Amino acid sequence: MLKHLFFSVAVLLAWSSSLMAQSYADYVNPFIGTSNYGATYPGAIAPRPMATVSPFNAAGKQNKFDKDSQWNSMAYWHENTFLTGFSHVNLSGVGCPDLGVILTMPTTGKPSPDWKSYGSTYSQEQASAGYYAVHLDKYNVEVEATASRRVGISKYHFPAGESNVLLNLGLGLTNEQGAMLKVVSDHEIEGMVTVGSFCYNNPKAVYPVYFVMELSKPADDFGIWKEARPNEGVEAQWMKGYNGQLRMIDNYRNHVVGDSIGAYMHYSNAHPMTVEVKVAVSYVSIANARENLRAETAGKDFDQVLAATKQDWNDALGVVEVKGGSEDDKTMFYTALYHTLIHPNIQSDVNGDYNLAGHQGFGNSQEHERYSVFSLWDTYRSLHPLMSLLYPHQQSQMVKTMLDIYDESGWLPKWELNSTETYTMVGDPAMAVIGDTYLRGIHDFDTKKAMEAMKKHFSTIEDNPVRPGNKAYQQLGYIPVESEKSDLFDGGDEQEARVWGSVSTSLEYNIADYAFGQFAKAIGEEEWSKKALAYTASFKDFYDPSTKVLRPKMANGEFMSPFNPKDGENFTHAIGYVEGSAYHYAFMVPHAIPELIATMGGEKQYLQALDQLFAEGHYEPDNEPDMAYPFLYNYVKGQEWKTQRQVRKMINESFSNTPAGLPGNDDTGTMSSLLAFSMMGIYPESAGSTKYLITTPRFEEVVIHLDKDYYHGDKIVIKAPKATDRPYIKSLTVNGKKQSSLFIDHQTLTEGAEINFKLSKTPQPAL
Amino acid sequence: MLKHLFFSVAVLLAWSSSLMAQSYADYVNPFIGTSNYGATYPGAIAPRPMATVSPFNAAGKQNKFDKDSQWNSMAYWHENTFLTGFSHVNLSGVGCPDLGVILTMPTTGKPSPDWKSYGSTYSQEQASAGYYAVHLDKYNVEVEATASRRVGISKYHFPAGESNVLLNLGLGLTNEQGAMLKVVSDHEIEGMVTVGSFCYNNPKAVYPVYFVMELSKPADDFGIWKEARPNEGVEAQWMKGYNGQLRMIDNYRNHVVGDSIGAYMHYSNAHPMTVEVKVAVSYVSIANARENLRAETAGKDFDQVLAATKQDWNDALGVVEVKGGSEDDKTMFYTALYHTLIHPNIQSDVNGDYNLAGHQGFGNSQEHERYSVFSLWDTYRSLHPLMSLLYPHQQSQMVKTMLDIYDESGWLPKWELNSTETYTMVGDPAMAVIGDTYLRGIHDFDTKKAMEAMKKHFSTIEDNPVRPGNKAYQQLGYIPVESEKSDLFDGGDEQEARVWGSVSTSLEYNIADYAFGQFAKAIGEEEWSKKALAYTASFKDFYDPSTKVLRPKMANGEFMSPFNPKDGENFTHAIGYVEGSAYHYAFMVPHAIPELIATMGGEKQYLQALDQLFAEGHYEPDNEPDMAYPFLYNYVKGQEWKTQRQVRKMINESFSNTPAGLPGNDDTGTMSSLLAFSMMGIYPESAGSTKYLITTPRFEEVVIHLDKDYYHGDKIVIKAPKATDRPYIKSLTVNGKKQSSLFIDHQTLTEGAEINFKLSKTPQPAL
Repeated sequence: MLKHLFFSVAVLLAWSSSLMAQSYADYVNPFIGTSNYGATYPGAIAPRPMATVSPFNAAGKQNKFDKDSQWNSMAYWHENTFLTGFSHVNLSGVGCPDLGVILTMPTTGKPSPDWKSYGSTYSQEQASAGYYAVHLDKYNVEVEATASRRVGISKYHFPAGESNVLLNLGLGLTNEQGAMLKVVSDHEIEGMVTVGSFCYNNPKAVYPVYFVMELSKPADDFGIWKEARPNEGVEAQWMKGYNGQLRMIDNYRNHVVGDSIGAYMHYSNAHPMTVEVKVAVSYVSIANARENLRAETAGKDFDQVLAATKQDWNDALGVVEVKGGSEDDKTMFYTALYHTLIHPNIQSDVNGDYNLAGHQGFGNSQEHERYSVFSLWDTYRSLHPLMSLLYPHQQSQMVKTMLDIYDESGWLPKWELNSTETYTMVGDPAMAVIGDTYLRGIHDFDTKKAMEAMKKHFSTIEDNPVRPGNKAYQQLGYIPVESEKSDLFDGGDEQEARVWGSVSTSLEYNIADYAFGQFAKAIGEEEWSKKALAYTASFKDFYDPSTKVLRPKMANGEFMSPFNPKDGENFTHAIGYVEGSAYHYAFMVPHAIPELIATMGGEKQYLQALDQLFAEGHYEPDNEPDMAYPFLYNYVKGQEWKTQRQVRKMINESFSNTPAGLPGNDDTGTMSSLLAFSMMGIYPESAGSTKYLITTPRFEEVVIHLDKDYYHGDKIVIKAPKATDRPYIKSLTVNGKKQSSLFIDHQTLTEGAEINFKLSKTPQPAL
Repeated sequence: MLKHLFFSVAVLLAWSSSLMAQSYADYVNPFIGTSNYGATYPGAIAPRPMATVSPFNAAGKQNKFDKDSQWNSMAYWHENTFLTGFSHVNLSGVGCPDLGVILTMPTTGKPSPDWKSYGSTYSQEQASAGYYAVHLDKYNVEVEATASRRVGISKYHFPAGESNVLLNLGLGLTNEQGAMLKVVSDHEIEGMVTVGSFCYNNPKAVYPVYFVMELSKPADDFGIWKEARPNEGVEAQWMKGYNGQLRMIDNYRNHVVGDSIGAYMHYSNAHPMTVEVKVAVSYVSIANARENLRAETAGKDFDQVLAATKQDWNDALGVVEVKGGSEDDKTMFYTALYHTLIHPNIQSDVNGDYNLAGHQGFGNSQEHERYSVFSLWDTYRSLHPLMSLLYPHQQSQMVKTMLDIYDESGWLPKWELNSTETYTMVGDPAMAVIGDTYLRGIHDFDTKKAMEAMKKHFSTIEDNPVRPGNKAYQQLGYIPVESEKSDLFDGGDEQEARVWGSVSTSLEYNIADYAFGQFAKAIGEEEWSKKALAYTASFKDFYDPSTKVLRPKMANGEFMSPFNPKDGENFTHAIGYVEGSAYHYAFMVPHAIPELIATMGGEKQYLQALDQLFAEGHYEPDNEPDMAYPFLYNYVKGQEWKTQRQVRKMINESFSNTPAGLPGNDDTGTMSSLLAFSMMGIYPESAGSTKYLITTPRFEEVVIHLDKDYYHGDKIVIKAPKATDRPYIKSLTVNGKKQSSLFIDHQTLTEGAEINFKLSKTPQPAL
C-alpha cells in the first residue's frame, strides 16, 4: 500500500468521506460498458466534456481486442491488458472508431517513440466520476487523472531515476491521419491531430483537434519523433536504416508534421517526483486551446480541478435522488445518468468559438453553448426526452445548436460529429427531437426557424440529403423496396439517394412527421400539422397479415417475395430493415400503438405477436428499434404486469454493475437512458407524445428535482415501497388520485407530481 | 505570336532595349547546366535568393529523368518534357535531391489534385536573369515568373473559361515528407513543407519551409486535397474507394496536414484573365513569410518586381566588364558569375530571424545577413576566393555566418544546409575559407573567434564531428587506411568516426591546416601557426615512387597492397579516395606544389606525371579535386604554355552556352567559378595562399570593379588583345612592369593592377 501515499490528498479525502456518506459521483462506475462492446471508457471527465483522460489499451497484438485486427470503436477494453497511453478526446458508446487521440504516456528510462515497446501492463485501476487512477507495472508509475470540461489533467508519480512524459500523435482510434506538433518550451507542447471520416461514410468529413500540453515541471531535455514514410524501390535503398522507421530528434523546436509523430519530455530525477500534465483541447485553434487551458485551470492544481469536477458531477447527478435498491442498483442508475451526461458534449471554446468543419469555417456562440455528437437515430427515442425532463436547459441548448446547424448547412443534423454530418443511420430524427422538446414545455428556442427547417425536411423531395426516398414516401405513403437499389423517384445523385431499409426508414419518417405534426399543431400551424400527420402510418401499408409483421413492399403495392421475417438478425443485411429483422421492427410505431393494434386485428393478435417476440427471443435490447418493447404491454388493459415483468427482466439480463453491464454499444448514452428511465419506472411513449408509460421503479423512492426555469413543479416524487422485492403494481396514485391506467403525462409530472405505488410480489391483472 | 500579347510590358521593354544595348543580365542563359547533371535550374531568381520560381519537370514516367526511378538532384531537366508545376525553393548545382517544393501550377477546367493527370508539356521557354516564361501546351496558359529575394512571383495568363491555381505540397525533390496548409481566404493560403535529410546522410536534419501564397484576384471557390494513407487488410476494405486516394474537399478552411496535400483556387472567367501569384517563403514561421511578402512586394506588381530584380542582377554582374570574345563567351562568363551568385544564399527573413534547425531554435541576425547552403568541400577552392575578390562584403557576411554557426553548434560548418549540418564530403573546409578570406584582406569579422574555432577543429582529437581520423592524423601526420573501417585512434562513436578516403581526407586536412597556419601567422599567433603548418605535407607520406601517385598507407607505415591507381574512377568506391582515383588526387596539394615536385624527384618526374594525366584522360574537370590541374604547368618554367593550352581546352570541352554547358554538378557554383576565373585569366593558387596563377584570358579586356570598402584599388584591368585567336602568352606586364613568371599576388591585383598581355597563336616556351 505504500505507493498509495503518492495518491492525491483529495482522493484520500474522497475515500474517507465516502465511508461516511456516499456522494452521487461515488456511485458512478465508469467501467460499466467497457466490455461487451459497450464502447464507454473509464477515463476522467467532467459533464459533457470536450477533453477526457482515458486509458487507451486498444492497440497491440497482445490485446484480445486490437484496433488494427478488427473493427473496434473502443479506446479501452476491460479484457485488454496492454496500455499505450491516455487519450484526450474520446467518443463514448459509439459503433465506429474515431477520436481516441492525443495520447500521453509516462515512462521511465530512455524515451522510446514506439508504443509497441513502451506500452505497459497495468493494475490497481480505480475510477469514479471525474477521476481515474492506475499503476503502470512496467514503470512502477502511478497515474491519476481528472479533467475540467476542456482540459484533461494527469498526475504522474515517477520513482527516482529517468522519467519521461511521451506525447504520441500517431496512435489513436480515428481512421484519419495527419498531425502536427511543436515543442514551445521545456514545459509546453502545442499541436493538432486530424480526425474524422467517421464510419468511413464521408471521407471528406475530416477536421483538426488542436491542443496545448503544459507540464508542471520544466523538462531537463526534450525531443520529437517522426516516422519516415516507408518507401519502396531505389528510395528505400537510399534510406537504408531509417526507411519506414521512427526517427527521434533531440531538442527539436520546429513544427513536426506527419502521420506518425510524437514528442517526449525527459527528466533526470534523483528522487521520486510528481509531474502534472494539463492537455487543453479546442476544435478551432491552438490559441483557443491555450485560452481554454488558462480559463479553466490557470492557477489550479490537480486536486483543485478534481474537487471542482467532482462537485459538478454531484450537482448534475443529484438532480435525481434514489432511495432503496441495492448498492449495485444505485451504481447502475447513477452510472446510467453519467453516461447520458457525456454526449452531446460541449464543442465551443470558452470564448464561444467553434469549428464548422463540414460546413467549412468558424462560428461563435455566445448566447448558448455549442454542442456536438448528435447520434440522433439513437438518442431521439429516450435520451433527449430524459434530457428534457432532467436537464431542460441543456436540452434547450442542444436544440439551439441543431438550429444553428440548419443555418450553417441548410439542414438539421442526422448524425453530427464535430460539425461534420456523417449521414450515419436513417430517418429524420432531428425533427423528432425538436418537435418533442417543444411539446415537453421547452419553448425558448426559435420555433419559427424550427418550423422552417422541418417544412424543408418534409417537403424537399428531390436531392434531400437527410431523407433519401422522400419522393416515393410522399407519393406512396411508404418507401418501396426499389428505392434501396436506386431511388427511382428522386432526381438526385443515385448513390446518395439510395435508401437503406425501406421499411425501417419509412417508420422513422413516420415518427419524425408525427413529432412535426404535433409540434406544428402546438404552435398553431394547423395546415402543416395535418399534412405531416398524414404521413405517420406507413405501417398500415407494410402490415402483412400472413406473417404478422411489417413486410417490405414494392412500388406496385405488392409485398416483396420471398420473405423471411428473421432476415436481418444479428446485424446481418436484410432488404427492408436497418440493423434488425422484421421482428425487431414489428412494433416500431410508438406514436400509434393503438392503431397498430387495430391494424393487426385487435388486442389478441397484438398480444400474441408480442408474447411470441419475447418467447422466441427476438427481443434484443442491444439496439434501438425494439429496445422499449417491454413497455408495450401497457397498451392492453390487464396485461401491464407483463411490462413490469419484461422491464425488470430486461434490466436484470442486459444491465449490471460490471464492465459487461450494457447490452451493447451505449450509443452515446441511449442504452443508459433506457436503463435510467426504466429504473425510475417511467418511459416516454414516443417522440411527439408527452405521455410516459409507467412500470415498477427499481427504487423505493425516486425524487426528480425539476428545473424551475422550465417547469412549474419543484420536484417529482415517486414512492414505491419494497420495490426491490415486489415487481408488480397493485395500485397507483398520482397526487393522491387513484389511477386506472399506466400512462402519465409530462405536464402532470412536471407540475410536481407525487406518484405512489402499491406493489406486489405477484402479477396483478388490473389496477 | 498573338499569345505574346499577354506578356509583360516590362519584358517587351527589356526585349526592345536589348536590341539597343545588351545588359549583363541579358547575357545570362539560365538553361546552362540544366542537362548533363549540371543541376542548375532555369527559373526566376534574385541574387542569393531564398525564393525561386522554377519549372519543375522531374516527376513522371514520361520524363527521361524521373526522380522516382533514379537518383535525381535536379528539379528541371532540359531533356524532360512533362512539367508539373513551379517550385519555390530550390538548390542549384547540388548532387543530392532536396527542396524543390511548394509547387504551384496553373490549369484550366475542373481542378485535379493528381499531378500525373494535370501535368503538361510546354513550349516557348525563355529565361534570363530574374525572368522565366513558358507556354503550357495542355492549357494554352502563358506563365511568366520573377522573384524578389524571398518572394517568387508568377503571372498566369489564362484563356477564357475555368481557371485554376493549384498548390501541391506533396510533390518535390526533397526526400523528406510532411506538409501543412490552411486556406486563409479566397486569395491567400499559408502553410509549410518539411524538407531535409539531404543525401540521406543525416535523417534527423529535417526542418520546415513556411510560406504565404497571395493571389492578385479572389478565387470564385477553393478547396484542398489530401491523400488517404494506403492501408492494408481490414482497414483497406473499410476505406473502400478512397484507400490511398487523393480526396478533394471543397471550401475547406481548416489546417490540412499530411504527406500528400494540396489546395486549389478556382475561377470562372468569361474573358481571358491574368492572375499574379506571390509565394513568400521563410524558414522561421508563417508570420515571417507574411512579413517577407509585405516588405519585399507590398504594393508592387509583377513588372515592378521584375524591373527591380533585373537591376539587382545588372548591379551584381556588372562588377566585371568584359570586352571581346564571342557572344557565347560572354554568355558563358556572365552565366558563370550568375551561378556563383546563387549560393550561399540568404537564410534570414527581412526581420533578421532565421531558423537554427539542426541546432534547434531560432536566431536573429541584424548586423549581417545570415547565409546558408555552404557546400564547402566544393566551394573553398575557387568560389570563395572569387567572392573575396568580387564581392568581399558578401564574403565577409558568409564568414560571419560561419562563425555564428560555430557559436550555435560548437563547430564550424562542413556542408551546411539551412542550419542543418549534413556532414557531406570530407575535410575541414571552413578553416580553409576563413583563413583564406582573412589573408585576402577581408578582416571585418571576429578573428579571435575564428582563431578559437580553428584551434578547436585542429586540436580536438576525440569525438571531433568535423574531422574523423584527426587523432591518427595528428599522431602519424596522415590518416591510415585502417581509419576507413573504424577509427582506431578515436575514442568516439565508431560509425561517426569512420574516415571516408584516408588519402583524400588527409590532403584536405593539409590544406585546411595550411590556411589555418597562414591565418595564425597573419594575426600574430606564431606558435599556432607553426603547429598547424607542421601538418600540411601528408603527401610526403603518401607518395609512392613505384606508382608515382599518393597511395593509401597503413598505420604501420606500409603502403596498402594490392593497389591500382585507377581504382575510384567514375565515382566508384576506392579505399583511400573520395570521388576519384589516385590520379585525380595525385597533385591535390595546391599549397605545396614546389614541395610535391621535390618529393616526386624533380620537375621532370612532375611533368611526366602531369602530361600522362592529361594524355591518358585522367583529368576530369567534373569534380573538384583535379579541376584546376590545367594550371599546374605554371610551376615549371617554360611549361606555362601547357597551362594556357589545357585551360583553353578545358573551357572548350567542358563548358558551353548550351544546357549541357557544365561538366557535371555545378556544386553550388564551384564549376562556374572555375570557368569565371579561367576566362578572366587568373586562378587562385590555394586556400591560404594569396597568389593567383595566370593564364590567357578569354576576353580582350576584363575590368573588375573593386569594392572600395575592402580594397585600395578602384579596378583591375586586364588587357589581352586578340585573345580569342591567340591562346598563348608571349609576354606580360603588370602596371607596366614586365613579368617573368605567371603568378600574381592578391594584393597587387587589388591595389588596382593593370595587366597587359601580349599573345601569340603558337606556344611560347618562356616569357
